[in-house]
Amino acid sequence: MPDHAAVHSSGEDDAAVGGIAADRLRSIIERVERLEEERKALAGDIKDIFTEAKSAGFDVKVIRQIIRLRKQEPAEVEEQETLLDIYRRALGM
Amino acid sequence: MPDHAAVHSSGEDDAAVGGIAADRLRSIIERVERLEEERKALAGDIKDIFTEAKSAGFDVKVIRQIIRLRKQEPAEVEEQETLLDIYRRALGM
Amino acid sequence: MPDHAAVHSSGEDDAAVGGIAADRLRSIIERVERLEEERKALAGDIKDIFTEAKSAGFDVKVIRQIIRLRKQEPAEVEEQETLLDIYRRALGM
Amino acid sequence: MPDHAAVHSSGEDDAAVGGIAADRLRSIIERVERLEEERKALAGDIKDIFTEAKSAGFDVKVIRQIIRLRKQEPAEVEEQETLLDIYRRALGM
Repeated sequence: MPDHAAVHSSGEDDAAVGGIAADRLRSIIERVERLEEERKALAGDIKDIFTEAKSAGFDVKVIRQIIRLRKQEPAEVEEQETLLDIYRRALGM
Repeated sequence: MPDHAAVHSSGEDDAAVGGIAADRLRSIIERVERLEEERKALAGDIKDIFTEAKSAGFDVKVIRQIIRLRKQEPAEVEEQETLLDIYRRALGM
Repeated sequence: MPDHAAVHSSGEDDAAVGGIAADRLRSIIERVERLEEERKALAGDIKDIFTEAKSAGFDVKVIRQIIRLRKQEPAEVEEQETLLDIYRRALGM
Repeated sequence: MPDHAAVHSSGEDDAAVGGIAADRLRSIIERVERLEEERKALAGDIKDIFTEAKSAGFDVKVIRQIIRLRKQEPAEVEEQETLLDIYRRALGM
């Protein structure tokens, strides 16, 4: 439950509209929107690199798997691959 | 289906390992990882702003709704709000 | 960290392959797959209803919003709509 | 753009409120809500099976990987595993 400190009496420096810190609210929203724009641009850049990778003959799905593996500890990767192998044989895959 | 151009004969400038353009692959992966790091940092920055907003007494859920509305055309927002009102009354909400 | 109780010595009732409770593993996987199929079918049914709604002239986006609102407490909905109105006026929207 | 066929003149069999086919709208919403409830129940059932799997000593992450693999064609799985191996060696992983 917010304490509604943002709803204050007018007469402050901030351009209070309807008893709210309008400038503060606007600043918060515009900063979030700017950062979201940057995130979107980065997502586009990543997509471009995968397009480049595909054009160069690489398998994008496998590259994504490599990136996932690199985020894990090598010992953890090895343990899971061992288990995967055991489970597959148990299932006759 | 990739054309496997990335799997080429050795003897090129690129450090080909197992017939693959290893340097090119490494460059692709490292660039993606760097951009993903930046995206993660931006997500953290956005989260910080919402924490700040909450501390200032704003309702974060409502701010998110404002940001969604600002992405739409005003005419579209108005039409949907009119319909929402009609549907709610039809349902006795 | 799993305790690897599933990796046991052979000679049990279960068809142990590589020291693993193969039948148990297979049962777990097949049950999950069956439930995932059912979830997928339900997602298809929901999509069909929205297609029907659209054909009947309803706005699907607004129906989704109605469904979201019905999940919340009426008092909570009202408080958020009041705040949304205050924030919008503060921002001159 | 919906054709607003749902907004019709009153005097029909349907309990038209504000010129809308209220019964039809209510039926659509209630059917979606029921199916969403079923989906949620299935998600809970799946979670229970994974809890059971973990208790039996299985690695849940590896089971999820098995389920993903079973959705693919064996030839596709093999090709990707070959490529994964090539890429890893190229990167010295």
